[in-house]
Amino acid sequence: MRSINLDTLIAAFAGIETITDPHQVAKLSQDYHTFSPVLVPKLEGKVGDIVVRPANEQEVLKVAAICAKYRVPITVRGAGTGNYGQCVPLYGGVIVDMTKMQEILWVKPGVARLEAGVKLAALDKKARDLGWEMRMTPSTYRTATIGGFIAGGSGGIGSIQYGLLGDRGNLLALKVVTLEDEPRVIELRGDDVQKVNHAWGINGIITEVEIPLGPAYPWVEVIVTFDDFMTAAKFGQALGNTDGMIKKLITIFASQIPQYFHALHQYLPGGTHPAFLMVAESSLESLPGLVQQYGGQITYQKPAFEAGKGANLGEFTWNHTTLHARTVDTSITYLQSMFPADPQLQLVEHLYNYFGDEVMMHLEFFRVNGKVIAGALQLVRYTTEKRLNEIIAYHEQQGVLIANPHTYIIEDGGRKVIDPEQLKFKEMVDPYGLMNPGKSKVLQFKIKN
Amino acid sequence: MRSINLDTLIAAFAGIETITDPHQVAKLSQDYHTFSPVLVPKLEGKVGDIVVRPANEQEVLKVAAICAKYRVPITVRGAGTGNYGQCVPLYGGVIVDMTKMQEILWVKPGVARLEAGVKLAALDKKARDLGWEMRMTPSTYRTATIGGFIAGGSGGIGSIQYGLLGDRGNLLALKVVTLEDEPRVIELRGDDVQKVNHAWGINGIITEVEIPLGPAYPWVEVIVTFDDFMTAAKFGQALGNTDGMIKKLITIFASQIPQYFHALHQYLPGGTHPAFLMVAESSLESLPGLVQQYGGQITYQKPAFEAGKGANLGEFTWNHTTLHARTVDTSITYLQSMFPADPQLQLVEHLYNYFGDEVMMHLEFFRVNGKVIAGALQLVRYTTEKRLNEIIAYHEQQGVLIANPHTYIIEDGGRKVIDPEQLKFKEMVDPYGLMNPGKSKVLQFKIKN
Ligand SMILES: Cc1cc2nc3c(=O)[nH]c(=O)nc-3n(C[C@H](O)[C@H](O)[C@H](O)COP(=O)(O)OP(=O)(O)OC[C@H]3O[C@@H](n4cnc5c(N)ncnc54)[C@H](O)[C@@H]3O)c2cc1C
Ligand SMILES: Cc1cc2nc3c(=O)[nH]c(=O)nc-3n(C[C@H](O)[C@H](O)[C@H](O)COP(=O)(O)OP(=O)(O)OC[C@H]3O[C@@H](n4cnc5c(N)ncnc54)[C@H](O)[C@@H]3O)c2cc1C
Repeated sequence: MRSINLDTLIAAFAGIETITDPHQVAKLSQDYHTFSPVLVPKLEGKVGDIVVRPANEQEVLKVAAICAKYRVPITVRGAGTGNYGQCVPLYGGVIVDMTKMQEILWVKPGVARLEAGVKLAALDKKARDLGWEMRMTPSTYRTATIGGFIAGGSGGIGSIQYGLLGDRGNLLALKVVTLEDEPRVIELRGDDVQKVNHAWGINGIITEVEIPLGPAYPWVEVIVTFDDFMTAAKFGQALGNTDGMIKKLITIFASQIPQYFHALHQYLPGGTHPAFLMVAESSLESLPGLVQQYGGQITYQKPAFEAGKGANLGEFTWNHTTLHARTVDTSITYLQSMFPADPQLQLVEHLYNYFGDEVMMHLEFFRVNGKVIAGALQLVRYTTEKRLNEIIAYHEQQGVLIANPHTYIIEDGGRKVIDPEQLKFKEMVDPYGLMNPGKSKVLQFKIKN
Repeated sequence: MRSINLDTLIAAFAGIETITDPHQVAKLSQDYHTFSPVLVPKLEGKVGDIVVRPANEQEVLKVAAICAKYRVPITVRGAGTGNYGQCVPLYGGVIVDMTKMQEILWVKPGVARLEAGVKLAALDKKARDLGWEMRMTPSTYRTATIGGFIAGGSGGIGSIQYGLLGDRGNLLALKVVTLEDEPRVIELRGDDVQKVNHAWGINGIITEVEIPLGPAYPWVEVIVTFDDFMTAAKFGQALGNTDGMIKKLITIFASQIPQYFHALHQYLPGGTHPAFLMVAESSLESLPGLVQQYGGQITYQKPAFEAGKGANLGEFTWNHTTLHARTVDTSITYLQSMFPADPQLQLVEHLYNYFGDEVMMHLEFFRVNGKVIAGALQLVRYTTEKRLNEIIAYHEQQGVLIANPHTYIIEDGGRKVIDPEQLKFKEMVDPYGLMNPGKSKVLQFKIKN
C-alpha cells in the first residue's frame, strides 16, 4: 500500500462513493474490540487509508479489480459492531463499507435473500409481514448487517431454538466477489457456504446472502427472579429442555449484574438472580408451573403486542450485558464460553463459586448439536492481562471451551483452526492475500506479487 | 350394570343417538389391541351393552348423569384406534362415542380449540389455511380424534421437534365432564391439564381441548437408503441433532422391514436400510451434504406441493409400520421402546445384533427432555407369550425403557405408576369408579354405592 499513491486510488475509484476525511476514515477503521483492554493497545492507531462505499455488485467488482491490480489490502465492514478487531485494518489500505447495499431482494415463506449490507432489524420488519423472522440475531440486530453477522457473528437470540449460525441449515446461499485480477461473482449453496461462513472477511466480499427464516411467534418478554444462583441456572436449563415450550431467549444473571441495568431496576430486587426470557405467547401459560417448581418469582412480563415499546429485554443479553456493565464501569471486560452438556451444571457451579466477584456469571442457554447447553459471557473485573489469561486458562483446564475475545487472531479465538476447505477457497478467491491481512496465523501477511 | 335393565337406559337416553344393534355395539367395543396376540384372547368377548353418541356438551352432561344415577360403567371412545384395549369395556355398560362432537371452535395463530371428537386431519386442514398445523400427530391422524390422542396417545410425527404430548407446553387446556351425581363441567389450564393428559378415559369425559400449533412448514418427504443399518441409525441421530435443519420425521428401518411396504418398493432396493424423512423445504438443500457424509443414497423425494398426492411416508412410520407388516404376516407383533440418550447408539447396535431376525429394528427419533433420543417400535416375530416376555425382559435389563403394548393395565404399560394428582382428581370426578373400570391396578373394579 505504502508504495502506491492515494490519489491513484481515488482516481481509480471515480464514480464510487469514497471517504478520505481522516477522522471519518479512522472511525470506520474501528469496531467494538474496545470491550477488550488487551486488544485496545494492540490495535491502537491502526487505520485504513480510504473508505469506499459500493452501492451494488458492479461497484464491488470494480473495487475488487482495483485493489487486486494495485495489491492493496482491503478490510470489508458492515456496521463494525464486531468485538475482535475484525474490522480494524492492520496494514492500512482500503476499507470497503458495505452498508449502502441494503436491498432485501425477496422474502418467501421460510426463506429470504438480501444484499450483504441489509440491517438485521430491517429484514425482520419486512419478514414479519409474512409471518416470519430471522431465526437468530445478535443483540446488535438494530445496527448489525447480515454480511457482518455471517462473516463475524456466531449466534444469539434464537439460538436456543436453532443452534448457532455455523450449524448446517442456518445459511442457504452466499454470493461473493473474488479478489482475482479479473474478479468474479461466485454463488455458493449447500455445504459450500461453509467456505465463507464465519470467515472474518478473508474469503471474498459477500454481496448477497440467502437465509432460512423462523416463524414469527408473538414473543412475550419475562423476568423471573430467584434467591439462589444455581436454582436460577437450573431453571434455565430445565426451560431449555422443555421441548413443548417455544422460547427465543434464556439468559441467567448472577445477582451482581442487574445493578448495571438501570432501566429495569424496579423488576430486579436487590440480591436476586434474574432470568431474562422470551417465550412464545402460546407457551406463556405453561411458564408459571415451571417457575413455581424452582421457587422463582415472575416480576415482569411484556405482552407480545407491546414488543416495540419500552425496554427490550434482548438488548440486555448476549454481549449487550457487557455493554451495559461497561457503561457504568469501564474496568469490566468479559469472556465467551461454552460449558459441557450437563443437566446438573456442576462446572457452572464450581466456577461461580471459585471466582466469586471477580468473574460475574452471565449464562446464555443455546442448542449445540441437538442439546441445550450453557454458554456464558461472564463479566470480568479486569486487573492485568496476566490475570485475565490465568482466568481463561483455569476455565480451559476445567473443561470449559473459551472463544477468547481478547485476540484478533482467528485461530486464537473460537475456531482454533481454520477449516482446510476455507483455506483452499481462500487461495482461489484471494490469490494476492489482500483480504483482512494479519488476522490469521497460517496466513502470515505477505502480499504476493 | 347387570342389575339394571337395558330398556331403562334406552328410555333415559331418549333424545340422544344410541346404538343397540349387537354387531355395531361389538364393533364399537373394539380397538387396535389386535396388534397384540397377548391381548386378543384376554379381551375376547368383552363388549358394551349400548353405545351413545352425544352431539354436544349438554348431551354429554345428560349421559354422565344417567350413568352416575344407575352406576353404569362407561367407556369413552374416539376413533378407537388405540392399541392397548383402552376402548374395550371390561365390564360391559355404556360406550360413549365422541365422534359426533366435531366442531373446531377456533383457530388463532399458534393455538386452536376444538371439540373432543374432531379428527386430527380435519384440524390440520383448517389450521393450514392460517399457516399452522398440529405440532405432532400419530400416524393415525386421518381417523384419530383429538380427545383420543390426548387421553390415549403419546406423540408421533412432529415429536422430533416438540417432544411428547405429555411434555409441558404441548397441551394448553381441557374441559371435562364429571361422573358425579350432578355432573359438572370443569376447565383445566396450565399444569392442571396433566390431571387428565394420557389418563386413558378414567378421569372425566373430555369435551373440549385447547392445543398449541406449530408453523405449517412446506414438508418434503424423502427416502434415503444405506448399506449398513448402524450407519443409517447414526445418520438419523445426526440429522436429529442438526438444530439448523427443521424436520418432522426421522424413521430408520432395518432391511427386513421394507418388504412390507408394497407401494414403495421401487425406492427401496433390496438389502438396504432406509430412512424415511420429512424435512422443511427450506432445509432440503442442506440434506445432501449430510447424506453424503454417511454414504447414503436419496432414492425418493416428494415435494411439498404434492403433499396430498400418492403415498404418504408418514403412514408407513410409527405404528403404521406394524400395520403394514401385519397386513402381510399376521404373526408379527411389536414393542415400544425408548433407548437411553447416546450419540453412539451402542444399545441399539447391541440389540440389533442380539435378536437378529426375530426383532426387526424400527427406530423413531424424537426429543425427550431436550435431547434427541432413539425410540423404537421393533417388529417381533411372535412365537409364545413367554418368549415375548423374555424379549421384553432382556431389553429392560439392558436399560431400554419398554412401554409394553401387550397389557391393558395402565401401570404395566408406559407409565408404571399413575400420577398421584391424577388419582386425586379421579376420586373427585368419578366418585363411583365408573370410568373404564378394570384398567388400573390401584383402581380395582368395584362400583361404589
Ligand atoms: C454490544 C454487542 C453485542 C453483541 N452481541 C452479539 C451476539 O449476540 N451474537 C453475535 O454473534 N455477535 C454479537 N456481537 C458481535 C457483532 O455485533 C455481530 O456479530 C454482528 O452481527 C456483526 O455485524 P456487523 O455488520 O457489525 O459486522 P462487522 O463488525 O462490520 O464485521 C464483522 C466481520 O465480518 C466481515 N464482514 C462484514 N461484512 C462483510 C461482507 N459483506 N463480506 C465479507 N466479510 C464481511 C468483517 O470484515 C469482519 O471480519 C455483539 C457486539 C456488540 C458490540
Ligand atoms: C396403525 C396405528 C398407528 C398408531 N400410531 C400412533 C402414533 O404414532 N402415536 C401415538 O401416540 N399413537 C399411535 N397409535 C395409537 C392411536 O391411534 C392414537 O393414540 C390415537 O390418537 C388415538 O385416538 P382415537 O380417537 O382413536 O382414540 P381411542 O382409541 O378412541 O381412545 C384412546 C383412549 O382415549 C380415551 N378417550 C377417547 N376420547 C376421549 C374423551 N373425549 N374423553 C376422555 N377419554 C377419551 C379412550 O377411553 C381410550 O382410553 C396408533 C395406532 C394404530 C392402530
